[in-house]
Amino acid sequence: MLINCSAYRDGHKLAEIPVEDISEYILLPDTFVWVALKDAAPAELAVMQEEFGLHELAVEDAMRGHQRPKIEEYGDTLFVVVKTVEPQGDELVVGEVDVFVGPHFALTSRQNAEHGFTDVRARAEREPALLRQGPAFVLYALMDAVVDRYFPLVEALEAELEAIEERIFIRGSQRKNIERLYALKRKALVLRHAVVPLMETVGKLHGGRVPAVCTGTDAYFRDVHDHLYRLNGTLDAIRETIGTAIQVNLSMVAIEEGEVNKKLAAWAAIFAVFTAFAGVWGMNFEHMPELHWRYGYAVALLVMALVAGFMHRRFKRAGWL
Amino acid sequence: MLINCSAYRDGHKLAEIPVEDISEYILLPDTFVWVALKDAAPAELAVMQEEFGLHELAVEDAMRGHQRPKIEEYGDTLFVVVKTVEPQGDELVVGEVDVFVGPHFALTSRQNAEHGFTDVRARAEREPALLRQGPAFVLYALMDAVVDRYFPLVEALEAELEAIEERIFIRGSQRKNIERLYALKRKALVLRHAVVPLMETVGKLHGGRVPAVCTGTDAYFRDVHDHLYRLNGTLDAIRETIGTAIQVNLSMVAIEEGEVNKKLAAWAAIFAVFTAFAGVWGMNFEHMPELHWRYGYAVALLVMALVAGFMHRRFKRAGWL
Amino acid sequence: MLINCSAYRDGHKLAEIPVEDISEYILLPDTFVWVALKDAAPAELAVMQEEFGLHELAVEDAMRGHQRPKIEEYGDTLFVVVKTVEPQGDELVVGEVDVFVGPHFALTSRQNAEHGFTDVRARAEREPALLRQGPAFVLYALMDAVVDRYFPLVEALEAELEAIEERIFIRGSQRKNIERLYALKRKALVLRHAVVPLMETVGKLHGGRVPAVCTGTDAYFRDVHDHLYRLNGTLDAIRETIGTAIQVNLSMVAIEEGEVNKKLAAWAAIFAVFTAFAGVWGMNFEHMPELHWRYGYAVALLVMALVAGFMHRRFKRAGWL
Amino acid sequence: MLINCSAYRDGHKLAEIPVEDISEYILLPDTFVWVALKDAAPAELAVMQEEFGLHELAVEDAMRGHQRPKIEEYGDTLFVVVKTVEPQGDELVVGEVDVFVGPHFALTSRQNAEHGFTDVRARAEREPALLRQGPAFVLYALMDAVVDRYFPLVEALEAELEAIEERIFIRGSQRKNIERLYALKRKALVLRHAVVPLMETVGKLHGGRVPAVCTGTDAYFRDVHDHLYRLNGTLDAIRETIGTAIQVNLSMVAIEEGEVNKKLAAWAAIFAVFTAFAGVWGMNFEHMPELHWRYGYAVALLVMALVAGFMHRRFKRAGWL
Amino acid sequence: MLINCSAYRDGHKLAEIPVEDISEYILLPDTFVWVALKDAAPAELAVMQEEFGLHELAVEDAMRGHQRPKIEEYGDTLFVVVKTVEPQGDELVVGEVDVFVGPHFALTSRQNAEHGFTDVRARAEREPALLRQGPAFVLYALMDAVVDRYFPLVEALEAELEAIEERIFIRGSQRKNIERLYALKRKALVLRHAVVPLMETVGKLHGGRVPAVCTGTDAYFRDVHDHLYRLNGTLDAIRETIGTAIQVNLSMVAIEEGEVNKKLAAWAAIFAVFTAFAGVWGMNFEHMPELHWRYGYAVALLVMALVAGFMHRRFKRAGWL
Repeated sequence: MLINCSAYRDGHKLAEIPVEDISEYILLPDTFVWVALKDAAPAELAVMQEEFGLHELAVEDAMRGHQRPKIEEYGDTLFVVVKTVEPQGDELVVGEVDVFVGPHFALTSRQNAEHGFTDVRARAEREPALLRQGPAFVLYALMDAVVDRYFPLVEALEAELEAIEERIFIRGSQRKNIERLYALKRKALVLRHAVVPLMETVGKLHGGRVPAVCTGTDAYFRDVHDHLYRLNGTLDAIRETIGTAIQVNLSMVAIEEGEVNKKLAAWAAIFAVFTAFAGVWGMNFEHMPELHWRYGYAVALLVMALVAGFMHRRFKRAGWL
Repeated sequence: MLINCSAYRDGHKLAEIPVEDISEYILLPDTFVWVALKDAAPAELAVMQEEFGLHELAVEDAMRGHQRPKIEEYGDTLFVVVKTVEPQGDELVVGEVDVFVGPHFALTSRQNAEHGFTDVRARAEREPALLRQGPAFVLYALMDAVVDRYFPLVEALEAELEAIEERIFIRGSQRKNIERLYALKRKALVLRHAVVPLMETVGKLHGGRVPAVCTGTDAYFRDVHDHLYRLNGTLDAIRETIGTAIQVNLSMVAIEEGEVNKKLAAWAAIFAVFTAFAGVWGMNFEHMPELHWRYGYAVALLVMALVAGFMHRRFKRAGWL
Repeated sequence: MLINCSAYRDGHKLAEIPVEDISEYILLPDTFVWVALKDAAPAELAVMQEEFGLHELAVEDAMRGHQRPKIEEYGDTLFVVVKTVEPQGDELVVGEVDVFVGPHFALTSRQNAEHGFTDVRARAEREPALLRQGPAFVLYALMDAVVDRYFPLVEALEAELEAIEERIFIRGSQRKNIERLYALKRKALVLRHAVVPLMETVGKLHGGRVPAVCTGTDAYFRDVHDHLYRLNGTLDAIRETIGTAIQVNLSMVAIEEGEVNKKLAAWAAIFAVFTAFAGVWGMNFEHMPELHWRYGYAVALLVMALVAGFMHRRFKRAGWL
Repeated sequence: MLINCSAYRDGHKLAEIPVEDISEYILLPDTFVWVALKDAAPAELAVMQEEFGLHELAVEDAMRGHQRPKIEEYGDTLFVVVKTVEPQGDELVVGEVDVFVGPHFALTSRQNAEHGFTDVRARAEREPALLRQGPAFVLYALMDAVVDRYFPLVEALEAELEAIEERIFIRGSQRKNIERLYALKRKALVLRHAVVPLMETVGKLHGGRVPAVCTGTDAYFRDVHDHLYRLNGTLDAIRETIGTAIQVNLSMVAIEEGEVNKKLAAWAAIFAVFTAFAGVWGMNFEHMPELHWRYGYAVALLVMALVAGFMHRRFKRAGWL
Repeated sequence: MLINCSAYRDGHKLAEIPVEDISEYILLPDTFVWVALKDAAPAELAVMQEEFGLHELAVEDAMRGHQRPKIEEYGDTLFVVVKTVEPQGDELVVGEVDVFVGPHFALTSRQNAEHGFTDVRARAEREPALLRQGPAFVLYALMDAVVDRYFPLVEALEAELEAIEERIFIRGSQRKNIERLYALKRKALVLRHAVVPLMETVGKLHGGRVPAVCTGTDAYFRDVHDHLYRLNGTLDAIRETIGTAIQVNLSMVAIEEGEVNKKLAAWAAIFAVFTAFAGVWGMNFEHMPELHWRYGYAVALLVMALVAGFMHRRFKRAGWL
């Protein structure tokens, strides 16, 4: 689905143009065309391939989708794949933005991503001084937007981790904790798989040899790279902390089980003593003098209570009750 | 066993040729010979060695089999080893495709692989524009086919992992889960050992210095590399998730054991109380007034029932029953 | 908030100067301006941007804060981000110092950091021979101060770890130990995330290609790098030891639980024997000769005591009691 | 102990020569001397040092033994250390082969290695075309032999691992399994310490800059490197699988303990119910009507049996019995 | 404290010289001064700084101590820090040797190290051919001595590990084992932190670009590097084995607990059966015919004994007793 197809000159929008005119506009000097597609059908991409003269392999990748974040050079055209991550209920949904950047055009095609990039275009159009830098700036603006949207997600993971940590040493919450830790781990993994390859990828757009269309925009891509590096650091810390928390959870399970076992066993012991005494005085020997005492029964109950009380106190002191 | 031996010129099939004529055809300009063997006997490979002038060490490797995925240059000839992985019942079977690629020939020899590559040849023959690029394209087409066949296997692992994850917190399924996780881990390892060395290997066919026979087909091998990189990422994620799942499994085993222990111990406590009371009133003291009451027995049963009921409620509240 | 704004020539302080004059002073030969801000408002940074001609992206980073430690070159200006870590109660608070270093100025802006750097300025002013080396020396002095403040924190972690280790094999302290280990791990992670990226970063200021403003101060930055490297080594050792200690803790929990279980079960067994004997002699068979013996009861008690004593001794020897 | 000392020209054996003549033979054109020592005494090595002009440090290393696998260049001489691994009963014994390779000689000295290399020499002498390549070929042939002998050992580890895996989920075999896994891990470590440094080492003999004596034999050393790389891959897989298996073992221990606990507790509960009922009817209240019923006893036994039966069925269904 | 201060020419000792003359001697051709300090006071180091013209930062490091192993170039002077490790009772004590090496001097300053280096000096003086190579040889001789002293320590760790391994599957030794493993791990970590940075450091003294004072002594430092590499390999193996042993220990704890539990539960079951039977025959029903049989009691005891015997045999067979 075509979202927008406009031509820009010197950082200013010329006009929205029909798709058929693209191939003419991209020949004009100081002009570039910026096209945005959403969930593009193969036919739409085929048209774009022809208008922009895109490389067959890149277009195939864009059609198939499910690429990893990457940057590929085909002659003077860049093919960039970026992953969007969007929360949906309790899940993270991964989408994809494919960007083709040539000297005179930028074509973006997003799939499976709810949140569009009209705000990116609007902001770019408000700053002609920046947009004048051409398609590479469009690429930057889009990447920056995608990466900025990772931050609240990672912060949500951090918040969730902190919430779990507050309950990690609380008795009786271990089953819930391990479930939450596992869910968190999975989400962190989803984000990591969006962030890490993109970080490696953006690293190729600044410092060292940079693709021709990106020369002069080094500092921008270094900034994006830097944000990804920071996200990666946070995700690493989350990952390590989850790992430790899972280990700690196991220790806590074992510790709590031990505590309960001790408590139960202590009570069992107290009752076993009762039963043993009662058993003794329930024996049928003929000559058991105490059975005939006037206060034998009372004394017996007293003895049993005293022993039980003594045991209770000892167990209490040992910290078992 | 010889599967096919054909000569191609300008991307079009000339003819199937007898093995003895190979050494003549490979001298013709713009012509290359594409031979396919299956479970080749040493004698067959010896004939090929002579016809194509292959290097002794490479042929030895091909004879012995069980090589790791690799690419080796012998003069202007490439020797490439690729692993096939095929599902067979509940197991993954690893086979091998050895490819010799020279300026005028491509020789493929597969071992222990059910699924052949006639479809690859057929498709290549339908696209002369691509096949015209010569033996390097044959190598690409074959690699691409092998790698494409990894995807459904990796997806099957992901599906199995998800199926396990759905049961990971379900009571009583821990033994089954750990068995399935272990089996999954083994399969993931098999695939990893096909994918990782191949990825490193294909990395040498694009970017940087590329063997002479592969110049001009960079983009194709980058595409294969990219698929392998993606597979590797997915396998890494599977691996990490399995590791966490095994840890979580252990926590769940401990948690469930604790739950069962508590339940059993709670019931045991209730019965122990019964037994203790009964023991007391079963003692043989002469002077136990309540034994002579009219409703002594009924009161005793009531007391026992009340105590048991009280304990039951407390245990219920504590979440033990 | 402006803390200080002074001009220096040849290592000697000229004067405190008003902010508006900065742009003039930095044009004077052999002169540089050193400005210190604290929790700077956007407006203050905007003024600085204009006076010093700072790059927009760097200023944006400084405004937003929460950057990772890094060094970025914008033309002949360096933008450096360093993390401060300060203890606050039982927590570690992370602050940030942003430093802009040009050929004729050094601008430092700290956020969320209690402890200022007036001591650094004072010491630098006392050593004109060093301060003569210009803004790069200011950068060094500040980094050195920040890094030096990491040391007591890392040493506190080491001391805490040793304190835990002394209790790791002590019975009954496992719950406390695991809580302390987890808290320690978190603190170590906070420090690691300040130290590691800074170490990588400072590595770019000595050896190899060094930014122009830092030439001639190689040895100083190597010294800082070296301190960071040492901190990193210590943190790694702490991390590894915590990991092992958590594993050991789990073993200790299991061992102690086993010990308690054995003790309880042994006592239970002794009482069960009592009960069993008593039960037997409590049966109502008509012909149980021992019941009629004169000393039957005494013998019965003796037998029970002997058996219990025997069991007690055996359990004692087996190390269960 | 001197095993063999022969001179070769153009790939053919000239003669066995006395040690004193070595220094003359190695001056003849197209000639090289191949000496083999076993558990050489310092004196023997001293003679060799003089005859071949070996570097003092290398000879010291050879005398001391226990070197790690390595390759060192001393002028135009290579000093190579390779580890042999031989099974001895249930242990792996590590030996060492030190090889000095110069333009006109190859000196091999093996220590603590039962299995000699006469077969290597015999095969080399049967193939003059290869042996003509000089001392570098001798080095290759020897390395190839050593590495080839690793394969059956690694395969034995794989077989042992598979044997353990078949028993890993079998009830009651966990103690045996963990013992076998630990033993396996140790053996894998022994092999890894022979393979990994050698792999790094051989990597220096092909590709990139190669020592002068090895030029022209690149392909051979690449082949050895490749074998080592494959061994390493297999050892890595073994290592990872052992790690997982140990974790799984722990889960299995916990699961089985849980199963046994449930079974025992279930039986205990059934008997506790018997005892509780019997206790009740064993009380001495005067007015317990059922005690006087004609079939009271039978009914009581029946009730007890029914309750026990009911419990048995419920436990059976719950999978505890 | 000054230990020794001597001048050497052409590998021969000239004389012990007073500290004040150092600055003159180091100007003489073919002459170098070798000074050894122990626990040097700041004043002593200040004198040395002046006499030798040492760099301020290096001297500061030497004064402060607690540096990591490293090599730093200050002009044509090398500053080297090496860690000594000495056993003291059951602990490992870490000391430090700082070495300054210039074209005409070697200054060594050891701190917190009992074992001195007079033997190194004595041996060097006995071999003028080697000592003629100048201060770089002194550096080598000292490093070699320090590294050689690591070997017995690492071997002691290996021996301790083997001693633990022999007891790892022995019943009842798990608490002791885990304590020993933990202590071992800590010692291994201490050695690792002496070895690893030194290894990286010495790597800079051979191969590639080598500091000027060390040219020509490449082979010596490669030898030291090699020893460190070997130590590192052994320490890695120890570390990995400890890790596995700790995991195995946990499994063993669980297995043994399971065994004890089964044994106790089995005995408990046998006694519970006794008690249940006795309970039944202790009931007070009027009509319990067997109570009136002549041999009722004997039969009852027999039945109980038979049932107990049967259970005992079954438990025995199941491996629980």
